[in-house]
This record gives sequence, structure tokens and C-alpha cells, in this order.
Amino acid sequence: MTAEDDTARYREKMQHRKAVQDREVAEKTIEKGLLAVHTGPGKGKSTAAFGLALRMLGYERKVVVVQFIKGAWDTGERRALMRFGDLAQFHALGEGFTWETQDRERDIAACARAWEQALIALAQEEVALVVLDELNIALRYGYLDEATVMAGLNNRPPQQHVVITGRNAPAWLTEAADLVTEMTLVKHHFKNGVKAQQGVEF
Amino acid sequence: MTAEDDTARYREKMQHRKAVQDREVAEKTIEKGLLAVHTGPGKGKSTAAFGLALRMLGYERKVVVVQFIKGAWDTGERRALMRFGDLAQFHALGEGFTWETQDRERDIAACARAWEQALIALAQEEVALVVLDELNIALRYGYLDEATVMAGLNNRPPQQHVVITGRNAPAWLTEAADLVTEMTLVKHHFKNGVKAQQGVEF
Repeated sequence: MTAEDDTARYREKMQHRKAVQDREVAEKTIEKGLLAVHTGPGKGKSTAAFGLALRMLGYERKVVVVQFIKGAWDTGERRALMRFGDLAQFHALGEGFTWETQDRERDIAACARAWEQALIALAQEEVALVVLDELNIALRYGYLDEATVMAGLNNRPPQQHVVITGRNAPAWLTEAADLVTEMTLVKHHFKNGVKAQQGVEF
Repeated sequence: MTAEDDTARYREKMQHRKAVQDREVAEKTIEKGLLAVHTGPGKGKSTAAFGLALRMLGYERKVVVVQFIKGAWDTGERRALMRFGDLAQFHALGEGFTWETQDRERDIAACARAWEQALIALAQEEVALVVLDELNIALRYGYLDEATVMAGLNNRPPQQHVVITGRNAPAWLTEAADLVTEMTLVKHHFKNGVKAQQGVEF
């Protein structure tokens, strides 16, 4: 077989691939606000939500982040979003991981405050993306209930995108979602004694 | 059982959890530049890499992004990173998806140019994070070879983090990596006729 054969085969394969791709793109015509869920035990759930925030901010569209577990501590994502001025709002209303507070009532109250901020964002058409970071944790511990959260999500502007992160997304939420990605842990550096590092974990 | 019992049980459970957590944190002492791989068929591989870029930029540490497949077209991530001035460098050196060019030699040449930029970044200690976006695709099609890429990664500054994205990461790369996350597709809106939307897919 000659190099020309190879090149021709490559082109033929890629032409077929392009035809399939073009047809698939043409079939997709709906624009709508997506409900996305990032769940699973792997790293990247919140990080990918911040990546979406970055992309949306690139188009100068408004983003609101509500963190249900992380508190007002200093993080790279918070600092970076401040660069975007009024385009990005950041509400870190948690009081730390549940094992830090050790007080269920206090955790519930913190989640209720975070949900209030979420509802404000979910009512504003000019907000293109709402990130509800670690909401799945709040749901799993029963700090917020299904009916409250579903009503808030259902009543949002039809073009508004929402990303909900955290392990153990409840079935009713993945059922309602347009996009569900599970971050699967294949290998993690914590296992090898590597600590949480600036810019990677926080 | 009374509400006090409930509260006490909650506290006990969380105290145990905190002790485990604290011990785990104390055991992790190593700081090192991580080699992270985001692979799998799900959405979020590049997006999570951009989330890491955002976090790192929040600390005013330098980030270099090299895109191996995407070309010089306008994306939200490119626009957003421009906000960070000299802190962020963006090289989109691909010429589109392989099925767009239909020319293997041209694809190989584009990947070689992208790898040159990657090598420059991989030689600079002041670059905290290098994102090699869709490098896995270039490796899978054989546009770059294992030995070249491994040498570049191995010779980088010891504290520099690298994230490599794309489906079908080769085994030798996941073997060498510190962190491997597989983005698993649970449910995708494209299946329901929803098109690629600004701020979500690009």
C-alpha cells in the first residue's frame, strides 16, 4: 500500500465523519436554558462549573455562583471572578463542611440563606448562568427539600442555565436534568500523600 | 427518640467524620506539580481544565493554554482569559476537528506547531499551570508520539501543574499521571435536539 492510498483512506474516513457530524448538528435546533448536574466521586465537578462560568463571562453575560458548603474563605475562584466586576456575583454562604460545624441546625440555617440567594438569581432573566455549588450535599443531608428546590428551578427564566454540583445527586434531580455528567475517580494524588494545593483544590 | 438524641447523634457522627478528615489531611504533606488527565466521553473535560485555569489566575499565577484541535475561532474561554492580561496566554493552534480539515499532513503540522508552544510553556518555571487541551486526540491519531510528549512532560519544572484533556487518553499517559478523572456521560441534551449554545459548549 502506498502513501497515496493512506492519504486517500484518511480523507474518505474523515469525509464520512464530517457528513455524520454535519447531519447531527443540523438536527439540533432547540435553544434552552439547561439544567446541568455534575456529580460522582471524581475531581472536577465544581471546577467544570467554574469553567462554564468563565466561558459565559467571556461573552459578558451575567453569572451568579452560590456556594452551599464552602464559607467565606479565600479561594482562587472567588478572587478570579472578582475580575469580572458586576458580571459575576459570588455568594459563599456555607459554614464549612458539615463535619466542621457539627451542628445540624446551623447547617440548615446556612443552607436556607444560600437558597434565598439562589432564588434571587433564579428570578432574574439577565442572569445567564447560576452555579449552585455543592447543592447536592445540602440535598443529601436533607438541609433543603425536593419540592422547594424543584419549584425554584422550574420557575426560572426559560433561557437561563443552571449547574448543580456535588456527590450523590438525588435521582429526582438527575431525572429532571438535561445534562448529567458523572466525574469518575480513576486515580487521585491524595492517595499518594500529595496535599491540597493552591490553584488545584482551592 | 427525642430531638436531643438526634442532635447528639449528628454531632457524634460529624465528630468522627472530622477526626478522619483531619487525620487524612495531616498525612498529606507532599507538594508537587501534578500531571492531571481529564478523559472519557462526558462533557466537562476542557471545561474543568478552564476552571483550574480560573482558580490559578485568581492567585495571579501564570497559565498557558494550548489548544491542539480548536483553531483561532472565537470562544468564551479565549475572551475571558484575555481579561487576565499577561497572566494568561492562549494558543489555539489546531485547524479544527480532524473531520473538517480532511488532510492528515496538515493536521500533523498543526499539532507540531501546537507542541512547540507547549514546550515553551513546559520550560518556564513561572508558568504555574499548562493546559494541553485535546492533546489526547492528537495522540490517538498519532499526530504526536509518546516519546516526544513524555520527554516534554518529564522535563518540566517540578512544581508546574499540567492538565491534558480529550477522549481516549492513552494508557501510558494515565499510567504516568497523578490524577485521572473520567467524565462519564449519564445524560446529554444533544440527544434531545438541543444545539450547542454560547457559554455552554463554546
